[in-house]
Amino acid sequence: MKILNRRHLLQSLIMSSGAYALGALAADKNSVGKGNPPPPSRSWPYVALDLERTAELAYQFHDRMSSCMYGVFASIITQLAEKVGEPYRSFPCEMMVYGEGGVAGWGTLCGTLNGGAAAISLLVRQEAERKALIDELFLWYQNTKLPAYTPKNPFFPADLPAVKTDSILCHPSVSTWIKEAKVTFYSKERKERCTRLSADTAAKTVELLNASFAGTVAKQSNLGAKTSDCLSCHGKGGVQADVMAKSCTGCHFPANHQHP
Amino acid sequence: MKILNRRHLLQSLIMSSGAYALGALAADKNSVGKGNPPPPSRSWPYVALDLERTAELAYQFHDRMSSCMYGVFASIITQLAEKVGEPYRSFPCEMMVYGEGGVAGWGTLCGTLNGGAAAISLLVRQEAERKALIDELFLWYQNTKLPAYTPKNPFFPADLPAVKTDSILCHPSVSTWIKEAKVTFYSKERKERCTRLSADTAAKTVELLNASFAGTVAKQSNLGAKTSDCLSCHGKGGVQADVMAKSCTGCHFPANHQHP
Repeated sequence: MKILNRRHLLQSLIMSSGAYALGALAADKNSVGKGNPPPPSRSWPYVALDLERTAELAYQFHDRMSSCMYGVFASIITQLAEKVGEPYRSFPCEMMVYGEGGVAGWGTLCGTLNGGAAAISLLVRQEAERKALIDELFLWYQNTKLPAYTPKNPFFPADLPAVKTDSILCHPSVSTWIKEAKVTFYSKERKERCTRLSADTAAKTVELLNASFAGTVAKQSNLGAKTSDCLSCHGKGGVQADVMAKSCTGCHFPANHQHP
Repeated sequence: MKILNRRHLLQSLIMSSGAYALGALAADKNSVGKGNPPPPSRSWPYVALDLERTAELAYQFHDRMSSCMYGVFASIITQLAEKVGEPYRSFPCEMMVYGEGGVAGWGTLCGTLNGGAAAISLLVRQEAERKALIDELFLWYQNTKLPAYTPKNPFFPADLPAVKTDSILCHPSVSTWIKEAKVTFYSKERKERCTRLSADTAAKTVELLNASFAGTVAKQSNLGAKTSDCLSCHGKGGVQADVMAKSCTGCHFPANHQHP
């Protein structure tokens, strides 16, 4: 079923004309000269995707390229390439391998989320909607017991614990999980956990995209009591106003720090 | 000057044929059926770019789209679109807006680095070289007093302190900088600092790419004494083996935690 509602079409047109205008402005007004940004690309129409197939593709693709970011991103773009054709067929999906291990093993943002956010941003051009979908995806990730996906033919057959890790960062998220699973980072269980997590995150991303393009996204998440409490002082409008973030307790443990 | 040395050409061909083989394998061997990854894209030839123009473009583009990730990524791809044409002209650069504020304001990986890593990964297909360049970029970022860029026509004219922040994450990096600058996160100074940081990171990314394609990358960085000390227990082969990361002290302060 092809879903492309009027709201998204309008958003896409507004975004395109706005970016073209910016390009024209650049040519007139500054010393950058010919350096206009490339004109916004042709439209990237979305069609609703199947969650289960998305999950299975992400599980397979993650393993083949040893990359969570690639697994999630390619699982979505591959299906759109099948259903829509260009420009998806020409997208260089393999560039997304870089996000593995929180980008090249640095342990920062979980690559499944970097891949999910990149896919959302390619497909949803309206700023508020894009940010809302990314917020929903990230909040779901940190607040859900994962992995939940059960592969039909697991690369490493094991009963893995599903753990709520309270963090969207690779290193703290994995650390919390391996403590619960009583394994090392470099174990087969940990590798299998992350591969299954790609399946979960890809399916959630598609769930959000399907709902967004059907006009039925129900935003239910908020940042949570703890983060909201922190941001009441540290966020915009607070006394400190020294932080922009949307999750705190995955890294900060106020009680241990004798927080005032 | 067009630089595309034999090493990179060979790497690119190996990578492409490998990915095609994986696609064929998928069609034969598993239940994913038609879900082969899109075939690897056509080649993305690199030509050496000018560092100063890259910095100025990144400064302008960041401001126009309010996105550090977009600023860095688009500054590089725009110039390649001018010099090479396709496939750069058709790349949907605007998708990279999502990385602002450590991805949609979540404060994780600095968007300038997410954009630099994405550009490196698009252009450098050989895994070891890609990871080495990303490591160099990230280590430079955390170990260098920034911002260093001085715009010809600043959006907000101010003498900004250059600070070594010891972190590649948006939130801790900004937090360290605003303490030194004695401003809030939501100040014009902080906004200007991040815009200039896009210029610095874009230029550094291009410096690394130019050197890589000229075959003259001199890898001088290592993870540093503190991180190496942590990883001697916590990294691969250590007694704990519970961490994959490449930087520790930006978040962890062992003395405060009574680390054994």
